[in-house]
Amino acid sequence: MTIALGVLVSGSGSNLQAIIDRVREGSIDADIRIVISNKPEALGLDRAREAGIPTACALHADFPVREDFDREVVRLLRGAGVEWVALAGFMRILTPEFLTPFAGRVVNIHPALLPACAGLHAQRQQAEHGVRLAGCTVHFVDEEMDHGPIVIQGAVPAFPGDDAESLGARILEMEHRIYPQALQWIAQGRVRVEGRQVLVDGAGRACGGPFWTNPPLESPFDR
Amino acid sequence: MTIALGVLVSGSGSNLQAIIDRVREGSIDADIRIVISNKPEALGLDRAREAGIPTACALHADFPVREDFDREVVRLLRGAGVEWVALAGFMRILTPEFLTPFAGRVVNIHPALLPACAGLHAQRQQAEHGVRLAGCTVHFVDEEMDHGPIVIQGAVPAFPGDDAESLGARILEMEHRIYPQALQWIAQGRVRVEGRQVLVDGAGRACGGPFWTNPPLESPFDR
Repeated sequence: MTIALGVLVSGSGSNLQAIIDRVREGSIDADIRIVISNKPEALGLDRAREAGIPTACALHADFPVREDFDREVVRLLRGAGVEWVALAGFMRILTPEFLTPFAGRVVNIHPALLPACAGLHAQRQQAEHGVRLAGCTVHFVDEEMDHGPIVIQGAVPAFPGDDAESLGARILEMEHRIYPQALQWIAQGRVRVEGRQVLVDGAGRACGGPFWTNPPLESPFDR
Repeated sequence: MTIALGVLVSGSGSNLQAIIDRVREGSIDADIRIVISNKPEALGLDRAREAGIPTACALHADFPVREDFDREVVRLLRGAGVEWVALAGFMRILTPEFLTPFAGRVVNIHPALLPACAGLHAQRQQAEHGVRLAGCTVHFVDEEMDHGPIVIQGAVPAFPGDDAESLGARILEMEHRIYPQALQWIAQGRVRVEGRQVLVDGAGRACGGPFWTNPPLESPFDR
């Protein structure tokens, strides 16, 4: 099975790049139909163009009402035949205008072990709190920010002296593993949501190893 | 070096028991001088008595003003020659009356990966949120609840179907590892606080293995 994926970006789109690379090598059974940004200068758009993926821009300024913006994004996604939506650094809360048409089919990655450090600047929040275990979370999107049911979490160590940048770089490596893994589980039809619990059919039980994730990473994401 | 330790409990005191056991086997260089409870029926008091450790009770009801309660606990601890204080399920926020005399010498364990799920019922909070990585945190105590600088954190997996009890049991096993480990680092004089960062001299850098903690556990706590 191959899913038709749309990716929403606002910035550098390094998670988008990880997804593009994994799709190219055949590790995610997805077809990236379109990459949409709310910022025309987003580097993520360049990454998409280089990969030959259609792009589109929807500017806040053109849609004074948030719902109109969301409707335009839905129109663009539907026009591209998108079934599943992955947010990759898309800095905007979504309204029901967006979430209802794609109910249960929007996922996001957040650079912290939710519910810790939701919101902006999660890497800085973690560094400033002095956590020893930082990490990232792939979750379904609901109307509350960084709140929906969790698919997978990955932990990375934080050390005294870490700042938002050094810690953020360590978290980002883990993001680039767990987001493609989660999307492949979705593409394989193995992901089921029951209330706030996300079941991944056939997933192992985390029990150590080099990558501190749960569920555990599967090949090729565990290398 | 052996530190003179006081332990404060309110309930079953299973962390107290882990500390008693580790002191007995010589793995924590501490002398438990006194165990104090704010509840006369706390099982932790029985555990202390069985281990031949002096006990005392300070009842809220006898001290209508919170500061008076704290002063009484300080009096009891000082009378027992205590240098360091470990909270083990002690359900009461401490005031400066307590924290000033023992500044920088009070530690606590919280059953979540702080800053996630501070406050009461952390295990239930984690289960109900549907986290995939749960855990626990040993931290210095300041006047904000579950907030002070972090010494060590340990992660455990959470699974769909987990409730507060099943998840809590898994977290508790990790608590019984990291709390004794943190106390031994303190007893060895290896722990230094700089702002919100806690440095453990000579501690390794977490890099996988069966126990997801940072800093990594050292012998005999890594078995």
